[in-house]
Amino acid sequence: MQIPSVYLEQAVDQLASLPGVGRRTALRLALDLLKRNELEIQDFVNALSALKDSILKCETCGNISDTPLCTICSNPKRDTALICVVEDIRDVMAIEATSAYNGVYHVLGGLISPMDGIGPQDLNIVKLPERIANTQPKEVILALSPTMEGDTTNFYIYKKIKDFELKVTRISRGIAVGSELQYADELTLGRSLQQRQLFDLQQ
Amino acid sequence: MQIPSVYLEQAVDQLASLPGVGRRTALRLALDLLKRNELEIQDFVNALSALKDSILKCETCGNISDTPLCTICSNPKRDTALICVVEDIRDVMAIEATSAYNGVYHVLGGLISPMDGIGPQDLNIVKLPERIANTQPKEVILALSPTMEGDTTNFYIYKKIKDFELKVTRISRGIAVGSELQYADELTLGRSLQQRQLFDLQQ
Repeated sequence: MQIPSVYLEQAVDQLASLPGVGRRTALRLALDLLKRNELEIQDFVNALSALKDSILKCETCGNISDTPLCTICSNPKRDTALICVVEDIRDVMAIEATSAYNGVYHVLGGLISPMDGIGPQDLNIVKLPERIANTQPKEVILALSPTMEGDTTNFYIYKKIKDFELKVTRISRGIAVGSELQYADELTLGRSLQQRQLFDLQQ
Repeated sequence: MQIPSVYLEQAVDQLASLPGVGRRTALRLALDLLKRNELEIQDFVNALSALKDSILKCETCGNISDTPLCTICSNPKRDTALICVVEDIRDVMAIEATSAYNGVYHVLGGLISPMDGIGPQDLNIVKLPERIANTQPKEVILALSPTMEGDTTNFYIYKKIKDFELKVTRISRGIAVGSELQYADELTLGRSLQQRQLFDLQQ
């Protein structure tokens, strides 16, 4: 596919560098941008430039924020005795959307993955023991994805914080609400049998 | 889904305005951009700004170009007696990729679509009769998509140019090469029977 303009080619190259965007899709996006007027393009480009210039990371938890302390950490109604460790800010949004959690977060910014060359020093892990020593929370919830990288990271964090006087918990794994038992994979079904809970009319 | 930063929200809004990009995908793209360094973001943004600032439309055919005359129109080896009318520059690229065509193009920039409020005056159609009067080509090939909009546009263009002394042709419609007959839709199969051609060992 030969693109008849160097500038269009460069725009396509850049758009194709985004995750999940191939060259054909990138061309479609570039041609859509090309149809817009100057002002619209300017707004588009400004919004992307502002990403790097204006967005901060919360000094306490590593969440994305417009202020040095994020809206969750600066909210006096949140329970700072409860710290939920998550991979990404999308996980914060997902948990916030459940309205089932009133504690604070610790955002790692990724998971330990030797395959991708990501070690603990590349993540917001070092600050966690410091934070625990300073704020003395009662419980740390590990809410990482149940993948190999998630498990490795869980284990690493557990080793680092197990000597503090606190409870370390992990989100439960089991059959998803609304899904059918027969379609669950063996590992999940096995775990959900092993980790069975007392029947409770309230839940 | 509540995004914890006004700037991130704005970037997501802009990315979600691209065709085929929903808010969830836009958030993924924005977070990917957020991970890049200043220089990478600058390159990304510059490439998109350059789209509007630097890309021209060929004065003759309406193709995208970095020069007033596109590489096809300015190539003396191309046969200017043959004009192929297409909707979009992606169609030019697709036809060029076949290496089966040595004429020139006329790029409309869209199709007539009363439903979307697109009339002939919004497209690069007016220039076509002028161009034919000036260059006196032998043949105009209508290579628009076989959709209702494509057929409407074909008909409109045909009416505008039928009084010139030239042949007006349309790309053939039929069963795609490599596809199975039984899966072809009735309309296509019917057309391909009606428009059957003499068996030719060369093709």
